[in-house]
Amino acid sequence: MTNNDEICVPADVFDAVCAKADAAAQAQRGLAQADTEAKNELLTAIADALDARADEIAGANALDMVESKEAGMDAGKLDRLLFDVPRIAAAANGVRHVATLPDPVGEIVRGYRLPNGLRLQQTRVPLGVIGMIYEARPNVTVDVASLCLKSGNAAILRGGHAAERTNAATLAIIRDVLADHGFDRALVDTVDEYGRDGATAMMEARGHIDVLVPRGGAGLIQAVVRNSKVPVIETGAGNVHIYVDASGDLNKAIPIILNAKTQRVGVCNAAEKLIIHRDVAAQYLPAIAQALIAADVALHADESAYDIIANAGIDCVSEGENLLAATAQDWDTEYLALEMGVKVVDSLDEAIAHINEHSTGHTESIIAEDYSAIEEFTKRVDSAVVMVNASTRFTDGGVFGFGAELGISTQKMHARGPMGLREMTTTKWIGYGTGQVRR
Amino acid sequence: MTNNDEICVPADVFDAVCAKADAAAQAQRGLAQADTEAKNELLTAIADALDARADEIAGANALDMVESKEAGMDAGKLDRLLFDVPRIAAAANGVRHVATLPDPVGEIVRGYRLPNGLRLQQTRVPLGVIGMIYEARPNVTVDVASLCLKSGNAAILRGGHAAERTNAATLAIIRDVLADHGFDRALVDTVDEYGRDGATAMMEARGHIDVLVPRGGAGLIQAVVRNSKVPVIETGAGNVHIYVDASGDLNKAIPIILNAKTQRVGVCNAAEKLIIHRDVAAQYLPAIAQALIAADVALHADESAYDIIANAGIDCVSEGENLLAATAQDWDTEYLALEMGVKVVDSLDEAIAHINEHSTGHTESIIAEDYSAIEEFTKRVDSAVVMVNASTRFTDGGVFGFGAELGISTQKMHARGPMGLREMTTTKWIGYGTGQVRR
Repeated sequence: MTNNDEICVPADVFDAVCAKADAAAQAQRGLAQADTEAKNELLTAIADALDARADEIAGANALDMVESKEAGMDAGKLDRLLFDVPRIAAAANGVRHVATLPDPVGEIVRGYRLPNGLRLQQTRVPLGVIGMIYEARPNVTVDVASLCLKSGNAAILRGGHAAERTNAATLAIIRDVLADHGFDRALVDTVDEYGRDGATAMMEARGHIDVLVPRGGAGLIQAVVRNSKVPVIETGAGNVHIYVDASGDLNKAIPIILNAKTQRVGVCNAAEKLIIHRDVAAQYLPAIAQALIAADVALHADESAYDIIANAGIDCVSEGENLLAATAQDWDTEYLALEMGVKVVDSLDEAIAHINEHSTGHTESIIAEDYSAIEEFTKRVDSAVVMVNASTRFTDGGVFGFGAELGISTQKMHARGPMGLREMTTTKWIGYGTGQVRR
Repeated sequence: MTNNDEICVPADVFDAVCAKADAAAQAQRGLAQADTEAKNELLTAIADALDARADEIAGANALDMVESKEAGMDAGKLDRLLFDVPRIAAAANGVRHVATLPDPVGEIVRGYRLPNGLRLQQTRVPLGVIGMIYEARPNVTVDVASLCLKSGNAAILRGGHAAERTNAATLAIIRDVLADHGFDRALVDTVDEYGRDGATAMMEARGHIDVLVPRGGAGLIQAVVRNSKVPVIETGAGNVHIYVDASGDLNKAIPIILNAKTQRVGVCNAAEKLIIHRDVAAQYLPAIAQALIAADVALHADESAYDIIANAGIDCVSEGENLLAATAQDWDTEYLALEMGVKVVDSLDEAIAHINEHSTGHTESIIAEDYSAIEEFTKRVDSAVVMVNASTRFTDGGVFGFGAELGISTQKMHARGPMGLREMTTTKWIGYGTGQVRR
């Protein structure tokens, strides 16, 4: 799926996917009226069934794992594909947790009485049918299903070829519980049987699917964003920057940079770039680079940073191995690895301009003690989340107190930043009158 | 511009439109930091300049009017195109009114302290560059410019060929005031000089324009929705229903139906369909039809409604003239004229199902006294606004207390219903820390 591919879905696949989405929409109208207790009981029953039938899922997953290993999948991806009994138990506990979260549906967002007596209420309602296109991470199937059901939405899923058996086994259990509880199985469905055509059909299914959420690598997300006729919420990709201001405290900078870069490497809120003010570069960079290199991070440094790091007498630094000259391409690269771009800037303005040009708009952090520098940075950096003297790793629905998240929105429309249950809703205005007409 | 046209923009036009959008984005970064007082002074100065130089606009408009008349434009469209000195004065007063509205930028939407001490604030910020594609209504140019500037956004406009001279004269004045007040002229710009290619280039300008808002007829809106690679907020089209329940009060129904259908005919919140419960159809329809026919409304009635109306002895009813047999197509038609579809249903369920199938999701109203019928209708009808015993004409940003509106969103994402200044913003999370790292 590249940006230039012609979109061409076989008509029978398109019709079948639309039929699934329409059945989901029909079923969603029932779910939208269900009260919170009924939805929570449903989620608890799904969690119990996942535990009780974990062997079915783990067995299917073992087959998927064998096939992917034989196909040469790398270790990182294999680890994400693994869905064994302990991981299934963890996912089931996640579902139980979603059951404990507040239900956003029915919240009165605003409400007031007009001068003519008409009583207006803006009320939170589900979005409808949420389409999810993701890569081979079977836990996402469970997460998305539970978040969609709790927020009153139906879900149409395309989970990636490598996890097809695992996802099918998981969905069979979820759909059995739906039926047992008097809900329609169509509430959670997959288009995996149609392969890539299924995903493409979802992107064409405007009027059948209300919103499409791609979750995975930058290539997947961009393909969906560019080709979808269904409204998309863009998630994920994080070319995340940390800027150390001239007023920054080195004792805060080192642990924050280390944490943001190395605490978990393959995640969207991990830092990818270090920008440092020239006034403190010579003083701070040696200690920062030393800490990063000791943590096995390779540095892609601009000319100024390279000179400082190469000549600082750092242990184990090795030019061409863990100290490299940055190329223009580095500034736009999300490494998702133990690598980091390092750039020296002459001013706060230059730092902000560089970030606004190269960031994916996910998260940036400033290390500073100067009040005005912090005000400028937080106001002018145009990203979903801006941290001050804190790790970028905090951009997370769980950390933000949402209980769970569908993903991190890096776009400006609808939702921006971590998306929890509330972000999976829209609103409806209801006006209660007594015969009012417009004059 | 039809749905099946290949999109093909000359490269030089695409580059020129992107350059305008990028200049607007650069200028918007300055405006985003302007405080409310500075923005209000700017708006007041724009209003004064529009008044002082009204003759320039009116002169340009006179030329547009002559050309459109010669081209055979109909009277309704000519009236919308007219922008004479009194109308310019009204638009200028609209700008002064926007200056009095609360500024949404900077509002703290949510804020709390995490257990680790990180202080999180979800803060309202402008969307960025808003693209507007609209038909020949010159007042929209003034409205959109003032709403965008007040909410900290830049605007790229495509205003329709017929109003090109009028819009150019209006924009010249607005841009002069921007420059006089130390703002960048690029904040409000037009692509009218590129004709249709300009509009198409805007739809392709993903990454340059943040959101596109089409405003006008259903054809224009659908063309933008289907072809745009830039996120679109769908506005407007209103196949609006009024349902008279078996429990409805005829004394409320008649004035509400008359008001919703006839108070203003060519607007999106005007009623287009009347659905009535069979239990009261024979009793209520004669009086309702009499009132509508007396107001020159032609009725497209289904078989049951036709029989009742034809045999009720109504004054001036004339089969084939103001009483017509409804066709399947009628249920999906937004007449925007003195015409109304009339349908008899056997149940509330049938009414809700019909509405959810045929409505454009704008506004529907129920006339009822039964509590459970009202609860069912307001919960299950999937539209932006649901009225109870009130005219559908109340769906309006001004009526809702927003002070002004960019349009009425009929989609579920981002904003739904009337869009005021708040709906022209997104949010940014800011986390204030003291060295926090993730464990």
